[in-house]
Amino acid sequence: MKRTFFSTLILLLITALTVSAQEIQVNSDRLHKSLMKLSSYGKNAAGGSDRQAYTVHDIEARKYVIGLMKDSGLEVSVDFAGNIIGKKAGKNPALKPIAFGSHIDEVPNGGDYDGPVGSMGAIEVVKTLSEQGIQTDHSLEVIIFTNEEGGVVGSRALVGALSKEALQVVSSSGLTQYEGIQALGGDPERIPELKRNSGDLAAFLELHIEQGGNLYTEELNIGVVEGIVAIEWWEFSFLGKANHAGTTPMNMRKDPMLPAAELVLAVNKIVTSYEGKQVGTVGKIQAFPGAGNVIPGEVKVTLELRDLSSEKIWKIYSEIEQKAKSLASGNEIGLKIKHIEVASKPALADPMVREVIKSQAEKLGFSTKSLPSGAGHDAQEMARIAPMGMIFIPSKDGISHAPDEFSTQEDIANGTNVLLHTILELDKRLK
Amino acid sequence: MKRTFFSTLILLLITALTVSAQEIQVNSDRLHKSLMKLSSYGKNAAGGSDRQAYTVHDIEARKYVIGLMKDSGLEVSVDFAGNIIGKKAGKNPALKPIAFGSHIDEVPNGGDYDGPVGSMGAIEVVKTLSEQGIQTDHSLEVIIFTNEEGGVVGSRALVGALSKEALQVVSSSGLTQYEGIQALGGDPERIPELKRNSGDLAAFLELHIEQGGNLYTEELNIGVVEGIVAIEWWEFSFLGKANHAGTTPMNMRKDPMLPAAELVLAVNKIVTSYEGKQVGTVGKIQAFPGAGNVIPGEVKVTLELRDLSSEKIWKIYSEIEQKAKSLASGNEIGLKIKHIEVASKPALADPMVREVIKSQAEKLGFSTKSLPSGAGHDAQEMARIAPMGMIFIPSKDGISHAPDEFSTQEDIANGTNVLLHTILELDKRLK
Repeated sequence: MKRTFFSTLILLLITALTVSAQEIQVNSDRLHKSLMKLSSYGKNAAGGSDRQAYTVHDIEARKYVIGLMKDSGLEVSVDFAGNIIGKKAGKNPALKPIAFGSHIDEVPNGGDYDGPVGSMGAIEVVKTLSEQGIQTDHSLEVIIFTNEEGGVVGSRALVGALSKEALQVVSSSGLTQYEGIQALGGDPERIPELKRNSGDLAAFLELHIEQGGNLYTEELNIGVVEGIVAIEWWEFSFLGKANHAGTTPMNMRKDPMLPAAELVLAVNKIVTSYEGKQVGTVGKIQAFPGAGNVIPGEVKVTLELRDLSSEKIWKIYSEIEQKAKSLASGNEIGLKIKHIEVASKPALADPMVREVIKSQAEKLGFSTKSLPSGAGHDAQEMARIAPMGMIFIPSKDGISHAPDEFSTQEDIANGTNVLLHTILELDKRLK
Repeated sequence: MKRTFFSTLILLLITALTVSAQEIQVNSDRLHKSLMKLSSYGKNAAGGSDRQAYTVHDIEARKYVIGLMKDSGLEVSVDFAGNIIGKKAGKNPALKPIAFGSHIDEVPNGGDYDGPVGSMGAIEVVKTLSEQGIQTDHSLEVIIFTNEEGGVVGSRALVGALSKEALQVVSSSGLTQYEGIQALGGDPERIPELKRNSGDLAAFLELHIEQGGNLYTEELNIGVVEGIVAIEWWEFSFLGKANHAGTTPMNMRKDPMLPAAELVLAVNKIVTSYEGKQVGTVGKIQAFPGAGNVIPGEVKVTLELRDLSSEKIWKIYSEIEQKAKSLASGNEIGLKIKHIEVASKPALADPMVREVIKSQAEKLGFSTKSLPSGAGHDAQEMARIAPMGMIFIPSKDGISHAPDEFSTQEDIANGTNVLLHTILELDKRLK
């Protein structure tokens, strides 16, 4: 009897503690409602989202979001780059803010989740804390970044990495970034003034959909992002001799299509021959002049490699380059290789922040997986100045940047709860 | 002594006979001069010819050609399709005319020989006959066809194979064929009236540059065309799943680029595995959406097969099709195949005409080679209504449809002499 009494007591205590740990939860329905409301701005006939940055849909959606932020207890302003910044004071003004957020702009005919989940999630976290009467030691800062899809413009501006030339680039709205930022109420001339420096933030967190199929396929709840991969681009031009497809015998051809096709296969073979999560893609192939009745004189093939390690990317690339050269010479074909640009450098998540995300997710009862982010995010820019962490939730079928991009209400709430508890834990640890 | 005397006498007789056979020769310098004059119409800064049909350059060149034809003793008219027709009466009005000719229009930035050689050659033949006071039994007809490069328009009109839809196609001049024919002084509405029927011509001959490298590479003088190859076109669409190149792990991809690349290699392998002169070309390959950072959802590959035998084309095709299907299913990729159109049916040269061309060329001391024409020509349309023959001369490096298209003055004169003597021989044989 006694043992049963004590057992029951202990069980009750454990349950009480567990409930206590879990009792601070975001309001899943409210969060879902705000997400659905946001998705109505710029919804097109195909069910996709046309909320490109700087468009009327973006501007209207920002008004809605600003209202929501104010309602959540944030003090809201728009900075010179058009970023929406919401601040909530902490108990200890000596501590640097913990920042978190995402973006609400979309690619043309995009989905409703890439950006909005992390944006609405961030606001819901603050709303929940306000409701619960919880004031963190650190002040909190919710950031809704300007034009993520069109070149992580807002986050680059924040870390001082947005060039004057980048401001002149025409965005998918038709406006230049410069004009677009003005349309949001920013002042592109004064962007240098808003630059944050290393140490200005205690941490930066971003909740986001995975945009890939790892979590969905493996039926896992939460992705703990290891970092955002480096991206390198090249273009291979195989140069043969354009000729009449009817009058040129097979044995007199200098057809660059053949080594180009071999290279496509070699890229796949070489990239998959390495252990790890690196990816390699030939997304574009073009023959010139490109007519069915002309042997091409030139075939261009793009190559993109992504991995958390730049060193590994270059190791794989050098093997591909060697193969391309031997294919060209074997076919008596010329070869020009162009390294397009460093599309982006790797941005590693902070190990301590990763660990907190993982442990908080597990404490909440979620299964987790550590994985790299193959896509770029504002978090990768923010990693330049602050310990960074990203939380992923599953994307149905791994689809993204398309109308059928989808994450469940439950997964969104799960990710937002992980964000909430990661903030609370970091608030304790970062002193 | 006697033997020596007789031997000498016989030798002299043979020489006299040989000289007699060779004495009817075209004027190589005059022919070359008219070709060079013709090439001045539409010459561009790059040295290429911009004498597309219906342009001002084409129209001016036609005036020059009409003058030359009249000067050669031809009675000239322009038919409803804009074809320039030059007639020279024969001794026997009961015989059907022997026709010969080519075209003077060029592809944009084309060369000076594809078409002009056979056109100026035909006029030179008549000029030579007039000078020599030779009247053939058959009447002769020189035809300079309208817009060969833009769809063998004039010859199709002549044989009743030009559809009303084809007249609405916009030509490279910017005018529709309908408007272009009007610009040449034709009357597209009355084209049906000019239709020639089978038996209306005793024969049709066309002198042309090879546009390929067979004669040039093997250092031969004259090509005896076996026929104009059939051409068939297909488009293979490999259908995978467009996805983010960063977030989609290698083993979760449905990348249509891989089977498309395999097919390019298979086409080459299968086409060259057969004996013969067939050719197979992948001239165009396109990935959709076609961005360096997107795994394509679809890759389209064109296939063109050419051979004198349609049966052989379809046999080769069926092997390629089978390969494409197995590549698609092996990669879990969808496949759609579209047979574009019968770009053209095979047109065999008349065996007797071929034999005459060959024997006359050999009599003139020229080396010959029988070969198919991989390119289309007006002669292939004319073959529908008349025994057809084509004479090829070497093209330097096999180059055609380009500013550096070139044939020597000697080769051009050789081909024109073969044309002349083929006409004279056919005039005897065709009664």
